[in-house]
Amino acid sequence: MTSSEYPPMQAPVCPLPYNDYETIVMAHGSGGALSLDLIKKVFLPCFSNPALLAGNDFAEVPGFVHGRVVVSTDAHIVSPLFFPGGDIGRLSVSGTVNDLAVSGGIPLCLTASFVLEEGLKISTLEKIVKSMADTSLEAGVPIIAGDTKVVERGKADGIFISTSGVAVIGARRAIVGSNAQPGDAVIVSGTLGDHGLAVLTARGELGLSADIRSDVAPLNNLIRKVTEFTDQIHVMRDPTRGGVATTLNEIAQQSHVGITLFEDQIPVHPAVRSACELLGFDPLYVANEGKVIIILPANLAHEVLSILQHEPYGQNARLIGQVQADSPGTVHLKTSIGGTRVLSMLSGELLPRIC
Amino acid sequence: MTSSEYPPMQAPVCPLPYNDYETIVMAHGSGGALSLDLIKKVFLPCFSNPALLAGNDFAEVPGFVHGRVVVSTDAHIVSPLFFPGGDIGRLSVSGTVNDLAVSGGIPLCLTASFVLEEGLKISTLEKIVKSMADTSLEAGVPIIAGDTKVVERGKADGIFISTSGVAVIGARRAIVGSNAQPGDAVIVSGTLGDHGLAVLTARGELGLSADIRSDVAPLNNLIRKVTEFTDQIHVMRDPTRGGVATTLNEIAQQSHVGITLFEDQIPVHPAVRSACELLGFDPLYVANEGKVIIILPANLAHEVLSILQHEPYGQNARLIGQVQADSPGTVHLKTSIGGTRVLSMLSGELLPRIC
Repeated sequence: MTSSEYPPMQAPVCPLPYNDYETIVMAHGSGGALSLDLIKKVFLPCFSNPALLAGNDFAEVPGFVHGRVVVSTDAHIVSPLFFPGGDIGRLSVSGTVNDLAVSGGIPLCLTASFVLEEGLKISTLEKIVKSMADTSLEAGVPIIAGDTKVVERGKADGIFISTSGVAVIGARRAIVGSNAQPGDAVIVSGTLGDHGLAVLTARGELGLSADIRSDVAPLNNLIRKVTEFTDQIHVMRDPTRGGVATTLNEIAQQSHVGITLFEDQIPVHPAVRSACELLGFDPLYVANEGKVIIILPANLAHEVLSILQHEPYGQNARLIGQVQADSPGTVHLKTSIGGTRVLSMLSGELLPRIC
Repeated sequence: MTSSEYPPMQAPVCPLPYNDYETIVMAHGSGGALSLDLIKKVFLPCFSNPALLAGNDFAEVPGFVHGRVVVSTDAHIVSPLFFPGGDIGRLSVSGTVNDLAVSGGIPLCLTASFVLEEGLKISTLEKIVKSMADTSLEAGVPIIAGDTKVVERGKADGIFISTSGVAVIGARRAIVGSNAQPGDAVIVSGTLGDHGLAVLTARGELGLSADIRSDVAPLNNLIRKVTEFTDQIHVMRDPTRGGVATTLNEIAQQSHVGITLFEDQIPVHPAVRSACELLGFDPLYVANEGKVIIILPANLAHEVLSILQHEPYGQNARLIGQVQADSPGTVHLKTSIGGTRVLSMLSGELLPRIC
């Protein structure tokens, strides 16, 4: 779908030339000499690739593109910037890679735009940029264009990162949220709620010190294993803000179907389950950043589960529900004790600044 | 280069259902019911197009793409949000359209990600989104994907908007900054410094009340007139942050050439010139958001100037300089009184929060 003219991606070489006393100043966002200095010392060594090095206002996507193309964008505002299992850099790359990958396409490239607060330590920015580069390398998706702006102290919260990306699908149509069919199986690729609880724990506000790590990860290679096995996937979506319950409500509405989940099949890490019970959260509404929901014909479910479970990011994949014609637009939960209740869309805000 | 399956773009239908008392709350960034409400009431009516309405985590670029593809991204943090001649919405669309257009390609689509401050009036957001839609319609480039996050009061400054976009070039190579050749002519499409001075005036801090309007505009249709006339353009770039002087320094360094400007040929609006003299600014270092520098073989300069001057955004286009082999990496200014001085790259920050 693209012919590659690119050398293979390299591990980032971040010289970390800044000490802890050097901070971002307004002139780093001027577009002038200090902006160039930041690009040369921080961004280029980490993100090094021919398109970025060309130094134009645009960047050329590797190779010649032939096919349907999809794009995606996400703003990332997580607080704190570093949390167990990840940081805003890994999050910003994984978030957009995953939004592209659920189309069934191959992500080709990312762009990143930064809003920095005056006074941010440059060494903190470097750690974040290095993490973006590591995650980009893991995903095999280069970051080829960027922009940096600086706002006065107190006018932003350290750093916000918006990432966008492009994927090519080829001649097929994209996998979309309106295509769930009665009889389909609902699979989730692993345990739920890890990201939201990891970020919440890292804030330290609740006096909770659980051993919970975020699941934040790029899923394009996992998803590719599935789409290479079958072209019969009906829906894929990553259950981020609002969790699995909200994501499945969206799909139920878009596809005009009902969805039923089986509570005793839903994978939740024991530490996440305990923390949720303690805090009164439902893991079905908590954000994930390294999980995908796959809705597909039931006769393919067993083999796809097996493929997922052999991958590092899919070991805890489970078949958690089914699609039916009844109750279109609604998600039900069959509880462990045999009852049934409606799972509505998240209303209000469960956990702010989670992604 | 793409086969269009799209209906023609429509003027935005913004019902403005919010009164002045309704404000952004944290739950508008939850991904749940209030996020959907904002999407349905503000974003979809303004940006309405099939890719966005599909409601997936990604959006499909109109048509089938065949060719080289370029991407670009920009974060926009301008203060104040509204200024004479434009606002952050028009700026965010024009900025990315222009960065794509200077590649010589045809911009296909944009994405937009918003960071909103809790407490922002929803009616303010609507005005901005409406302005984005109007500018997108003017450019003929649809906004097909978006994301909205909300941060606590005091953790951002009203609204930051990051836009990204995709353009297709076809089989030709992109027009790049490293291709200026000795003997080339340097053209600018109009008066310099209008945007920076308009924003500064709007801040009201300097007690200056000049009649200066920002030049912020999408230039893709203007640029297309030129690229349809000739495929001999060597460099195009829009002189935003750092102004024409900084942009030409970048090009001189990338192309290993010297550039000489003729001061008495440089178009500056009289009100901008007066304000610059009063404040001690040099219009060559002030940001523009609706101007393009075109570097091309001298024998084409006259006809390209004529094409530009017949377009609404190119009426004041001028031939302002030439490229030579001497003094590579350096920009010189021949002053009106016959002297010559070096124009270095902007160091420090002239005007913060300008774009």
